[in-house]
Amino acid sequence: MKNILIIGAGLSATSLIQYLLKHSEKHNWKVTVGDMSLDLVKKKIGDHPNGIPLRFNLKDLEQRNEEISAADIVVSMVPASMHIIVARECLKYGKHMLTPSYVSPEMMELDEEAKEKGLCFLNELGVDPGLDHMSAMKIIHEIKDKGGVIRSFKSFCGGLVAPDCDNNPWNYKFSWNPRNVVVAGQGVARFKENNHFKYIPYNKLFSTLTKTEIEGYGKFEVYPNRDSLQYCELYNLKDIPTIMRGTMRRPGYSEAWNVLVQLGCTDDSYEMKNSHLLTYRNYLLSFLPESDKSLEKCLAEFVHIDAESVIMEKLKWLGLFSNDLVGMKNASPAMILQKILEQKWALEPNDRDLLVMQHIFDYEITGQKKRITSSMTYEGKDREHTAMSYTVGTPLAIATKLLAKDLIQLKGVHIPTSPELYKPILTELEALGVRFIEEEIDF
Amino acid sequence: MKNILIIGAGLSATSLIQYLLKHSEKHNWKVTVGDMSLDLVKKKIGDHPNGIPLRFNLKDLEQRNEEISAADIVVSMVPASMHIIVARECLKYGKHMLTPSYVSPEMMELDEEAKEKGLCFLNELGVDPGLDHMSAMKIIHEIKDKGGVIRSFKSFCGGLVAPDCDNNPWNYKFSWNPRNVVVAGQGVARFKENNHFKYIPYNKLFSTLTKTEIEGYGKFEVYPNRDSLQYCELYNLKDIPTIMRGTMRRPGYSEAWNVLVQLGCTDDSYEMKNSHLLTYRNYLLSFLPESDKSLEKCLAEFVHIDAESVIMEKLKWLGLFSNDLVGMKNASPAMILQKILEQKWALEPNDRDLLVMQHIFDYEITGQKKRITSSMTYEGKDREHTAMSYTVGTPLAIATKLLAKDLIQLKGVHIPTSPELYKPILTELEALGVRFIEEEIDF
Repeated sequence: MKNILIIGAGLSATSLIQYLLKHSEKHNWKVTVGDMSLDLVKKKIGDHPNGIPLRFNLKDLEQRNEEISAADIVVSMVPASMHIIVARECLKYGKHMLTPSYVSPEMMELDEEAKEKGLCFLNELGVDPGLDHMSAMKIIHEIKDKGGVIRSFKSFCGGLVAPDCDNNPWNYKFSWNPRNVVVAGQGVARFKENNHFKYIPYNKLFSTLTKTEIEGYGKFEVYPNRDSLQYCELYNLKDIPTIMRGTMRRPGYSEAWNVLVQLGCTDDSYEMKNSHLLTYRNYLLSFLPESDKSLEKCLAEFVHIDAESVIMEKLKWLGLFSNDLVGMKNASPAMILQKILEQKWALEPNDRDLLVMQHIFDYEITGQKKRITSSMTYEGKDREHTAMSYTVGTPLAIATKLLAKDLIQLKGVHIPTSPELYKPILTELEALGVRFIEEEIDF
Repeated sequence: MKNILIIGAGLSATSLIQYLLKHSEKHNWKVTVGDMSLDLVKKKIGDHPNGIPLRFNLKDLEQRNEEISAADIVVSMVPASMHIIVARECLKYGKHMLTPSYVSPEMMELDEEAKEKGLCFLNELGVDPGLDHMSAMKIIHEIKDKGGVIRSFKSFCGGLVAPDCDNNPWNYKFSWNPRNVVVAGQGVARFKENNHFKYIPYNKLFSTLTKTEIEGYGKFEVYPNRDSLQYCELYNLKDIPTIMRGTMRRPGYSEAWNVLVQLGCTDDSYEMKNSHLLTYRNYLLSFLPESDKSLEKCLAEFVHIDAESVIMEKLKWLGLFSNDLVGMKNASPAMILQKILEQKWALEPNDRDLLVMQHIFDYEITGQKKRITSSMTYEGKDREHTAMSYTVGTPLAIATKLLAKDLIQLKGVHIPTSPELYKPILTELEALGVRFIEEEIDF
């Protein structure tokens, strides 16, 4: 009997817990789920005989030692910055570990010691990062194996709303952490195009768009992610002339979001004076020069848009021109924007979200130029069972199963870029409906 | 006999040293000037009998103790971050101290102890900060004393080039630290207008301009400085409806500089890959999407300007479209821009710089609205004897004289906002040709 310990029972743990409980009888597992909230854990486990609910406090050294030493495998679903606490404990007690999060430099430092102790620390096992690595590496290996040379790799991902629940002018609702959406892209975006390194600053990011399409889902636009250049090394594409990763939105989202960026509404670096006394109109006025014109006209002129445009319609729909009070003390512009967006972009109880991912590879083989497009779409069931949480939790659950069945020989700190990991995970995901459709054309 | 110790003999110390030596005989002073470079000190002192040159290393604890304990007054002309080292030593040995720099939080912490020990630590005694405080506070006190209520205070300052040496399309040359010019305004600019707090992000800063004029010098444009709001407290103008401080440039500068900002050329936060292999053309290309059009057309379109405009002429004049190699390793965009600007915007040996400052006060008195405009212009002699260094060094020198003659009763950490300081300094500056012209109109 294997004891799997899941630490953290939040949104993205739902699918993970359900999957592991479902497979627990066949494989003779005990699944212990620990969280600060025992109620939450009990709700997620239900009355499953192999589920053990636990009130768990990661800061309780004694409990931490006791539970981790009693486990065979630990899945860390705590906030990203806290994985390292779990990881060090796993190293101490000789336990395998999995996380859905980016490998931090501190985590990477454990690589050597984990290898020495024969332990496997798997990270970036969600959707992005996670499924993006797996689905891209599968094609990269296939092209290389048959002797192709990859000239261009573009990879897009987006958490959106399913078409039949898409009923607002932004064609967007939150399926994940709203704060990350508000501050997305701050800094500089780095990528490579035609062998030129490109650096796009935040103020130009949402007007530097790529267009794309997914069969059955229509058109999308893509703005570049922060650092695409690191994927040259991560995916072993060192001399690739073009590489760009980006975030997918529905057409028209970015030009409207760009207005909020230009105004400074997404700035999280300072507190606005007397923010609790501001109305939303006055919030906007804070970013504009004084003028005799109407706020609407003044704003439109300041950001060089038409006062009657669809962009203005999107802004008006958010309620930014209302006389309602913001009602937040010591708030940054970004915090105030987030508050109004959380009201407007919330998923309704029966709303279903949409996860989209697309890779476009241009490669050459025996003098012939070819393009492979690989696209995945997945719709959630409702506000609780989102595509986002399903596609984060399920790859992680499958990887946990593989580790529990001793089917993974990797030791040390890893992400799922090797066939040993991505092959069985992608195969099982496909059976579960998370499917990449590949298309190849001469180009 | 009083011993005045000047630590640091750089650009802005020239006028200070000359002034103090000139007055040394009459007041029976010994002026010791210490710097890492003894040659520099010797050059600045010449063969003046009261000048004592010293090779001085601030990090040499023994020398520091010895020299500071032997002085009566210490003038710290070291880089701003190092004043605190001098200040702590002055506190230890009971010496008065002066600096031209902003009061740091660490410096402010010494206030109580300096007061207890009867010491005077005077800061912000240059031109900006310095002369701006003095000339503004004089008028603020005058208006308040006669019962006026100030409704609006705008204050502008600029280091430019004298009209008859102004021979480039930017109407600008460096008279001060080029790096500060390149990264000027990054972050958010805060000010107040019609009782509305205003926050202008960097990407909108150089298109949020105020126009002004100075008799005999023509037109200027002004972009807002980082934090004007702190002056509400500093100048005791707490409920003032409008307050804005800004930087003066010649008309047309900002719209061209804004292109460099929009492109990301002023970003100092990351290194460009293989920067030593870039030509200036490829440097620009790094910030632009790939295109079949010419670089010139592509850039003009990307930043929404006319390819034949005076803005493009300014950019071309800088050599940014040349095929010359940048030739800098691991350089940020800002470092590369600074390199080309240092070549193009350098003062020629006989070029004279221009310092401009202007305050505009709107106030009400007995139901009457009035406006006072106070303007100062000062031209340098040549590249060595700049207006910038003269207007930094001279107020500091006068304050040093006042302290040496025991004419200042203030104790603790101060800036020159009180009449005890600004009155004698402004009076003497006027005699030296640094003169504010005031004009009052009904408004």
